[in-house]
Amino acid sequence: ILESDLTREAVELGPYAHFMQKEIFEQPVAVANTLEMVLNAQSISPHLFGSEAESIFARTRGVLILACGTSYHAGVVAKYWLETIAELPCNVEIASEYRYRKPIADPDTLVVGISQSGETADTLAALNYAKALGHRHSLAICNVPESALIRQTDLRFLTRAGPEIGVASTKAFTTQLAVLLLFTAVLAKMRGKLTAESEHNMIAALRHLPVAIQHALQTESEIKQWAGDFSQKQHALFLGRGVHYPIALEGALKLKEISYIHAEAYAAGELKHGPLALVDSNMPVVAIAPNDALLEKLKSNLHEVRARGGELYVFADADSHIEASEGVHIIRLAEHRGVLSPILHTIPLQLLAYHVALQKGTDVDKPRNLAKSVTVE
Amino acid sequence: ILESDLTREAVELGPYAHFMQKEIFEQPVAVANTLEMVLNAQSISPHLFGSEAESIFARTRGVLILACGTSYHAGVVAKYWLETIAELPCNVEIASEYRYRKPIADPDTLVVGISQSGETADTLAALNYAKALGHRHSLAICNVPESALIRQTDLRFLTRAGPEIGVASTKAFTTQLAVLLLFTAVLAKMRGKLTAESEHNMIAALRHLPVAIQHALQTESEIKQWAGDFSQKQHALFLGRGVHYPIALEGALKLKEISYIHAEAYAAGELKHGPLALVDSNMPVVAIAPNDALLEKLKSNLHEVRARGGELYVFADADSHIEASEGVHIIRLAEHRGVLSPILHTIPLQLLAYHVALQKGTDVDKPRNLAKSVTVE
Repeated sequence: ILESDLTREAVELGPYAHFMQKEIFEQPVAVANTLEMVLNAQSISPHLFGSEAESIFARTRGVLILACGTSYHAGVVAKYWLETIAELPCNVEIASEYRYRKPIADPDTLVVGISQSGETADTLAALNYAKALGHRHSLAICNVPESALIRQTDLRFLTRAGPEIGVASTKAFTTQLAVLLLFTAVLAKMRGKLTAESEHNMIAALRHLPVAIQHALQTESEIKQWAGDFSQKQHALFLGRGVHYPIALEGALKLKEISYIHAEAYAAGELKHGPLALVDSNMPVVAIAPNDALLEKLKSNLHEVRARGGELYVFADADSHIEASEGVHIIRLAEHRGVLSPILHTIPLQLLAYHVALQKGTDVDKPRNLAKSVTVE
Repeated sequence: ILESDLTREAVELGPYAHFMQKEIFEQPVAVANTLEMVLNAQSISPHLFGSEAESIFARTRGVLILACGTSYHAGVVAKYWLETIAELPCNVEIASEYRYRKPIADPDTLVVGISQSGETADTLAALNYAKALGHRHSLAICNVPESALIRQTDLRFLTRAGPEIGVASTKAFTTQLAVLLLFTAVLAKMRGKLTAESEHNMIAALRHLPVAIQHALQTESEIKQWAGDFSQKQHALFLGRGVHYPIALEGALKLKEISYIHAEAYAAGELKHGPLALVDSNMPVVAIAPNDALLEKLKSNLHEVRARGGELYVFADADSHIEASEGVHIIRLAEHRGVLSPILHTIPLQLLAYHVALQKGTDVDKPRNLAKSVTVE
């Protein structure tokens, strides 16, 4: 008998150095698996969310999303989609805050709990609190079929990301977003807000998503160059607007979690209301800015602090008109995909956090002080 | 003729070194002036908000607050009050975000614009956008009678804070909070949610507010000692929960604005979902924690990082049961005043920012990169 020198971990990791890296690169497959039923379909059906989904969605007048951490950021993206595409009011609440408040419940507002593990204590407690307050129906979006969250809701959609080992969530987040976009499309269709053409386009977009993520992963070599700059810093400011504001929040959280750089995100319009005072050569500014109009405003803000050495790192789209200049660095995504944009802009931010952590030599898969699932309050 | 050597600024400053310091200490008078009509009354009347207020409030089914920066934080406090005391649903939106989204408008949701200057470009634009979307009525809370905001709403309440010169807002914020508490009480009364006894208690609380602020100002000598610790740091984490979460946001913003320390606030329950990874001896943690239950959870979190030198600075109430210990520092407010608690907990945070900036030697009244009013987008 020959014993292998390979540990089980090494086998599972394959060609990757860390689970986080592996999970970042698994995203095209994870999203394709999650959307499998849709990718082969000609139309979008509520039944994907459970047998009762059609009747429950028919009386849904609003959506309340409850989540923590990265899952909360997915919820904030969904708020923009639900408002814009399904024309449904949506509130997103940090679960640990919601459960200790006295919110006003509407029975026909569907409660959506999002959690990778389905065991996040505050999310479970918040969901049950919402039910006790009078919300009639609930939906779980979760990566673990046998979890507590899945058992406590009428409706459910399982992300099929596969096991996520890295403490910093990556593929769980993008698969949650894929499901939330599908959820938005289903509600939009049932509410008569999605023309046949729009439905066709939405299915085409979802079908294209795995390939589009693959393209976004190709920013890696450029990201590695930026990572050198960031690994020297103790601070970073992430800015986004609209549906890209939660992506800025998520990008800052990733960098915090694994590189211990104090990264903070702001809605870009709030910059002048305080955080601009922090910007100098020690505080690089990252902009998630597919929108040229926002970029123009940002450039004028940053112009003011160029004298202090403030550097701007922009994640732009293929068709953005911004050009690199002194103190303004640009990475372009390969393509602009409208409604998919927040999902695609997530990818380079994950890669940035990963490569900065690598250069700093921190424990990427097990950052200090953190656990994978927060199953206590 | 003898010419005085005193500049106009020196005369206006009186015994104070900076306008910010003067404005912090003016808060008892600013709040008393703002609430003057209430302090002499036996009951709370909607007419304080304008002649049409009674009929408009009678059909108000929800509240939408639009604001930026510090005024946004005041709005988030009001959300908790409105839900708890008036049992009204309330959403608070960053004006620069709201105006570029496609929110669903309810005509009977009253729009409230908050701005010290009444000239904040994004707040004005967001207010007009909300009107265009179908919101029927609006209320301005503002410190400048001749401002654009005041002219664009059906209802208004002028804070009487007097001119605020320091770029970092202090007395404008606490007078806004005083008005928002009064607004909550008026709506609660009209909706039958305020018993005669509760109304009596609310008036008594508002009447006591200037004195209670005066007591909170007496924490200054203790704060000065803490300021020495903070002035050596580049980072700080501010934690709060519920109605004290926006106070944590405001405390972090003050420290950012004038001391250039990278202070960031989190809802305390989110700590384990990422920011805990940042905590070490370079990152003091400030807790605004009148609630003992929250404190126990925080202490157990912090216990985990004591080995890395994480230090906890707690603003507690007179009746909190927490005791100082190694790495756990405590300043107690002189009294616990229930619903007034977020207003009173603001005061020591303003003093902390001020004294840290003094020790660092930054330009307190005119921090770099910032303007007093953001009148451009």
